[in-house]
Amino acid sequence: MKVSFSTIGYIRSPFHQTEGMPIQPSGAKDVEGTVKVNAMYAAGLTDIEDFSHIILIYVFHKSEGFQLQVKPFLDDNVHGVFATRAPRRPNPIGLSIVELLRRDGNVLLVKGVDVLDSTPLLDIKPYVPGFDVFQVSSVGWLEKKEHQAKTQKSDRRFETNHFNR
Amino acid sequence: MKVSFSTIGYIRSPFHQTEGMPIQPSGAKDVEGTVKVNAMYAAGLTDIEDFSHIILIYVFHKSEGFQLQVKPFLDDNVHGVFATRAPRRPNPIGLSIVELLRRDGNVLLVKGVDVLDSTPLLDIKPYVPGFDVFQVSSVGWLEKKEHQAKTQKSDRRFETNHFNR
Repeated sequence: MKVSFSTIGYIRSPFHQTEGMPIQPSGAKDVEGTVKVNAMYAAGLTDIEDFSHIILIYVFHKSEGFQLQVKPFLDDNVHGVFATRAPRRPNPIGLSIVELLRRDGNVLLVKGVDVLDSTPLLDIKPYVPGFDVFQVSSVGWLEKKEHQAKTQKSDRRFETNHFNR
Repeated sequence: MKVSFSTIGYIRSPFHQTEGMPIQPSGAKDVEGTVKVNAMYAAGLTDIEDFSHIILIYVFHKSEGFQLQVKPFLDDNVHGVFATRAPRRPNPIGLSIVELLRRDGNVLLVKGVDVLDSTPLLDIKPYVPGFDVFQVSSVGWLEKKEHQAKTQKSDRRFETNHFNR
């Protein structure tokens, strides 16, 4: 089944290429960016400034095609793409939780941005611990590795023509 | 900008209508469901069974059109749709974190399902506290209300032709 969406705006960030980018917001804690929502959707942002964190759902626009088995940045072993956060997915949809510093009309100033500049935005949701925080009992291959996301930088492996088999 | 995705499978749940459904996984803690991933993507699930929780990104397929200002289930006041988790959004994309009990090939048995039966699936990501858990300082209008999501049930207000202005 095909589904079609229209982007609602885009994300500005200091990252103009994947190489050297943080791989998760935890590695981009102090990086500020802006979320520019199309003026026609501005009314949908009412009261969002009362939340300290928001969920951004966006398109990995520099990722083309997909791999079902990938070697993620944080591991030397291959895993199924759905067991990773790698961008070359069947549907290249990204998800980041960022801190919301301020809203100026249809522009949000955010912190903890780990996406490429001009990333097309699909949706914004409020981040609510009562809905979004779960006690996990296992994090698979990321066990003892998730903290490395704070320092690990991206390389070009998930760009088009940079296959990693 | 238009973006087009192909669903990768669908979610089975005991909920055949929006009325009376839980509004968040926290209100569906013991509700089991299955995630059926198309066989062509099965290899992408490798190692996912090692995670206790996963993020499902899906289409609110019974939601048509959108409202920029909505009165959510948990409040009597109107808010911008991006400050709510309501389904009638410009892009009807849903996000739920569920417990993963088991994988049988391309079928995942999950718990804490708060979606309609046959919900079209767009993506699965591992839920990783190091990436997905943040200390918030405010949750806006949901302050003192988020716990109500455990008991509050849905009604038909976000279905087509059930406008709520």
